[in-house]
Amino acid sequence: MEQMNTAAAKSIRCRAAVSRVAGQPLEMEEVEVAPPRAHEVRIKILCTSICHTDITFWRMEGNHPSIFGHEAVGVVESVGEHVQEVAVGDMVVPVFAAQCSECPDCLSDRSNLCSKLPNVAGLMPRDRTTRFSSVSTGEPIRHFLSVSSFAEYTVVDITYIVKLDVGFPPAMACLLSCGISTGVGAAWKVAAVEPGSSVAVFGLGAVGLAVAQGARMRGAKRIIGVDLNPDKFDVGKRLGMTDFINPNDTGGKTVSEVIKEMTGGGGADYCFECIGSTSVMAEAFQSTRNGWGKTILLGVSGNKAPISIPSHEILRGRSVIGSLFGGIKPKNDIPMLAQKYLDKELELEEFITHEMGFEEINRAFELLTQGKSIRCIIWMDGAKEIDNGV
Amino acid sequence: MEQMNTAAAKSIRCRAAVSRVAGQPLEMEEVEVAPPRAHEVRIKILCTSICHTDITFWRMEGNHPSIFGHEAVGVVESVGEHVQEVAVGDMVVPVFAAQCSECPDCLSDRSNLCSKLPNVAGLMPRDRTTRFSSVSTGEPIRHFLSVSSFAEYTVVDITYIVKLDVGFPPAMACLLSCGISTGVGAAWKVAAVEPGSSVAVFGLGAVGLAVAQGARMRGAKRIIGVDLNPDKFDVGKRLGMTDFINPNDTGGKTVSEVIKEMTGGGGADYCFECIGSTSVMAEAFQSTRNGWGKTILLGVSGNKAPISIPSHEILRGRSVIGSLFGGIKPKNDIPMLAQKYLDKELELEEFITHEMGFEEINRAFELLTQGKSIRCIIWMDGAKEIDNGV
Repeated sequence: MEQMNTAAAKSIRCRAAVSRVAGQPLEMEEVEVAPPRAHEVRIKILCTSICHTDITFWRMEGNHPSIFGHEAVGVVESVGEHVQEVAVGDMVVPVFAAQCSECPDCLSDRSNLCSKLPNVAGLMPRDRTTRFSSVSTGEPIRHFLSVSSFAEYTVVDITYIVKLDVGFPPAMACLLSCGISTGVGAAWKVAAVEPGSSVAVFGLGAVGLAVAQGARMRGAKRIIGVDLNPDKFDVGKRLGMTDFINPNDTGGKTVSEVIKEMTGGGGADYCFECIGSTSVMAEAFQSTRNGWGKTILLGVSGNKAPISIPSHEILRGRSVIGSLFGGIKPKNDIPMLAQKYLDKELELEEFITHEMGFEEINRAFELLTQGKSIRCIIWMDGAKEIDNGV
Repeated sequence: MEQMNTAAAKSIRCRAAVSRVAGQPLEMEEVEVAPPRAHEVRIKILCTSICHTDITFWRMEGNHPSIFGHEAVGVVESVGEHVQEVAVGDMVVPVFAAQCSECPDCLSDRSNLCSKLPNVAGLMPRDRTTRFSSVSTGEPIRHFLSVSSFAEYTVVDITYIVKLDVGFPPAMACLLSCGISTGVGAAWKVAAVEPGSSVAVFGLGAVGLAVAQGARMRGAKRIIGVDLNPDKFDVGKRLGMTDFINPNDTGGKTVSEVIKEMTGGGGADYCFECIGSTSVMAEAFQSTRNGWGKTILLGVSGNKAPISIPSHEILRGRSVIGSLFGGIKPKNDIPMLAQKYLDKELELEEFITHEMGFEEINRAFELLTQGKSIRCIIWMDGAKEIDNGV
């Protein structure tokens, strides 16, 4: 039986951190959040965090005014018509990728990119309108990746919602909503890392560190972290990395030369690019071994630059694999990763370097852009300040 | 018990088609073929055929004088010390890729590129010397890809030898020694084409046509052939292709646009590049669907040009996979493909468009470079002339 929908609910006025000018501090404003329409859910956000993709689009012209944020967890406040999967009070993770469970991609094990309800830039994916407006001027405000979690309330399509058990730690749920799942998924589902393998990870942000966790869980023997910021190496070690390379400190060798030396001359079995730099993608490819070396691309490049691969080298049994969200099918895989956390197979606490209240969000942006945080949990109702910065 | 080696045998004088000047006709000469050394086998060639890789290297400066040819079948004439796997009189296929069965690559299911005994340019792989010399001048003559089958006798390392049952049709064995196995293997082992899939094949030479055979055997629903030479479409149809695109005849559309239309807008599940052109590789990539589209690179580019892949597109769940020999592990997989031929699962006869005697080899080169033949079987002892040219 269809649950009674609560779409007759009124608009909600609440605080949101609105991005009005590319690259400039967010402005804490009062916004109006319209009720959820059919197949939509309105969520009270508990906490959110910032991912590099927020930074990339925040800096880009043409996306404003906008409410960014796509790593979060919340509680269902009201639901629109035809929503049966969740009910008011459920704890849910909104995600940036739909799972309609009907299209050829959702029905296939091989794809995690729903082809029925993809993101629509700045708008809700189904009817291509916005649920946000400015209380002071009435002007519409853009959504971001169908989530927009830098607000106390947001509206999300049901296909972009994952239900978790009430009682699961909200900060950990927040981590699983994007970056960590991407990294773990890349090692586990996209690369399918084999026991005893050698792995190199380029870029030790949350995604790269999560790749290390995933590779460790899959039994990798050697996990090499590559980053220009050696402050990241400690947390890398705690998350399972065995070796580190600072590209500025190789005595003139290229990173791929160092990785080949470390792996007995051949190169790594798997290389993960977690930055979004096409030159790093090329170096990652160079660092893979012939025969079966896989380069897995996870980093989103801001521009549409091409990656250049020497054709005579890829022919020697190597491959380059791109993925979004680490191959994660949100509704299937995020609850499974949550269980792995509860079973103590997946480490999550180490990823949280800071916690703060919503009003401090611009400081959280600074910490991430300066490479001082891995993940900062931003609590909408304020929280004890925690700083374990790298 | 180790068989008595026949290495005490003398040198053999025989005919060989020697390439003396890049791109110029081969010269039929009398050559001396030294006895096989340890781990080597001397073979009397029954028949050989020409592959595009022969053409590529024949045209390239710096590889002369040389005896080309790496698709062939023969009979063991004598063996060197420590050879136990074959005996005098055995029917064998020499191949361009070693399988030592000991190195990490040979021991892994994931690689077919022996890392212990790779090809050494122009020389035998183990002791890096030559077994060929000119009878008239005594000068050494270079080997090619450890095979050199454009000679009545050749010496091949045992790791580059596949034994077949005596009685297997020699012309069919010759086809399986390189091009056909590469194409079938690419569809079957590298891509692992799934039933009901859509496949596009760029370049309808023997390798591309064999990809179609492999895709058909794996249950592909739609197999689209792309070639500038529409004379290839008839044989493509007989080998399982369902649709054809001539890039010169698309009404101004790109090939990827046509393939997307043919496949309902998304693109093909698998695209195979069988030419060795980096611009075709890029077009093949563009023709694959998001979510799981695989581009498989088989064509060897003469220069070391890079392939350029838009990073934002590969991230949408696509991959690019390079392979040599279609992932075939020669000693395991070629006998298996031979059995599939005997069981009538694999079509081979269609690939043979011409047959002729050894003295006609320069005409066979012309037919291949002019796109008039798929495979020409060249019989060392002469044969009835057959011409089923495309």
